[in-house]
Amino acid sequence: MLPSFIEKLSGAVRRNDSRLCIGLDPDPQRIPGGDIAAFNRRIIAATAHLVCCYKPNIAFYEAQGQAGNDALRETIAAVPRDIPVLIDAKRNDVPNTAESYAAALFDVLGADAVTVNPYLGEDSLEPFLRRGDRGVFILCRTSNPGATDLQDLMVLAEHGGHVPLYLAVALRVNAWNRNGNAGLVVGATYPAELALVRARCPSLPILIPGVGTQGGELHESVLAAQNGVDTGFLVNSSRGVLYAAGEGQKPGDGATAAALALRDAINDVLRSPALRQG
Amino acid sequence: MLPSFIEKLSGAVRRNDSRLCIGLDPDPQRIPGGDIAAFNRRIIAATAHLVCCYKPNIAFYEAQGQAGNDALRETIAAVPRDIPVLIDAKRNDVPNTAESYAAALFDVLGADAVTVNPYLGEDSLEPFLRRGDRGVFILCRTSNPGATDLQDLMVLAEHGGHVPLYLAVALRVNAWNRNGNAGLVVGATYPAELALVRARCPSLPILIPGVGTQGGELHESVLAAQNGVDTGFLVNSSRGVLYAAGEGQKPGDGATAAALALRDAINDVLRSPALRQG
Repeated sequence: MLPSFIEKLSGAVRRNDSRLCIGLDPDPQRIPGGDIAAFNRRIIAATAHLVCCYKPNIAFYEAQGQAGNDALRETIAAVPRDIPVLIDAKRNDVPNTAESYAAALFDVLGADAVTVNPYLGEDSLEPFLRRGDRGVFILCRTSNPGATDLQDLMVLAEHGGHVPLYLAVALRVNAWNRNGNAGLVVGATYPAELALVRARCPSLPILIPGVGTQGGELHESVLAAQNGVDTGFLVNSSRGVLYAAGEGQKPGDGATAAALALRDAINDVLRSPALRQG
Repeated sequence: MLPSFIEKLSGAVRRNDSRLCIGLDPDPQRIPGGDIAAFNRRIIAATAHLVCCYKPNIAFYEAQGQAGNDALRETIAAVPRDIPVLIDAKRNDVPNTAESYAAALFDVLGADAVTVNPYLGEDSLEPFLRRGDRGVFILCRTSNPGATDLQDLMVLAEHGGHVPLYLAVALRVNAWNRNGNAGLVVGATYPAELALVRARCPSLPILIPGVGTQGGELHESVLAAQNGVDTGFLVNSSRGVLYAAGEGQKPGDGATAAALALRDAINDVLRSPALRQG
């Protein structure tokens, strides 16, 4: 049997001593010649010994039409088989239609894991969660400023009192996680909320975007997310690694150094005295 | 200048005396030979005089890989220019990424309108809403049973009291609708909720899926959604029209009769004495 997402992730975390996920989010304006797949291949070759996962966000490929679809397939094919591919898709639909999305992402594109949106409820997540060998990261608290508009609304809890919507989502994902393959997306831009989610969901893997360009707090986020488990969290960086080339360098240059620095910064937090004593 | 979504919709509603939107959601198992584009062309030819809009759900095309992408482009190209195409995509992302989704759906695929998910908040909707010539239907109360899981959570309202989350979403969309191109998605399976949304959002166009196969209440939904405006609502049917062929008929046969019956059933409600007196 092929390894599951969590097995692949765990293997890559240990082998590369890394919790770093690189977001393969191509910006054609920053890729001279516009060959997205070639650019991504260079990034992958420069960083595959430093990451636990690659995360292409499908929006950037769709925006390039047919060439983008081709580039996405070539990019996924270029990732070593023992490093998981998480397709950031953030979609979902009613159950009959969600089946098609699960087929498109898992079977047509071959994702080891995906991100999905929880707004449509448990039956819409079921076609993804049923695939026990794949990872399903459900949006909880996103990294953008507008996250507060709905995700912070205070909802009436079952036994009285109020909790913010993002926490109500996290608690439901705990309950819906019958196959042990669910995770959450919580942005590094909101470390206090991340700590609250971790306190109530001690075992769910958490995907943490928003480090770097979006200004998220790396140190606070790692402290909040770590749960002593190899696969407890992934820190994603996209633009900060992809476009790290300095003046006079070729695009893609600098990716190794940027990835190494970020991987080590995460590990420094994990190995800090504060955590060792905790 | 090319006509906007709302102008196209209004023109088709009047010309075809129709509030019917047909969902072009191909199921390859029900299309012998598997030529999705040819099947859709037959459906479009059989129904273009009876509808106000076509709504391909992109999930069904993505599930077919490259052939599906091609079929979606061919399908959109086959729709007469004076009938709007609404791509049902139900996705969204943080603002920088949402820009790419808007480009993919509006510019690469040429959608006149789309559906999007509100969970990420106003800034994530902005790249869509900024395109004033396109329609943006935001998920409010979806047609599936699991809609209740999150959308019915009672949230604390600004001035005290509680409203269900779906209504909180609807009220925010009212406020975010600065370009007059926002709409809502409310399933026909929940006519009471539809009435509540209409009462608080008198002018937003409402896309109503879930009639037919999903068991939605046509009569109740039309009564609840109508607001005296041509573009006030669209009733979507997919499987009920696409697969209406009887025994011995070719696939696609029966679509004209099914579309005609549904169009007229909607109009019967609109012209019922109850409404004329109201």
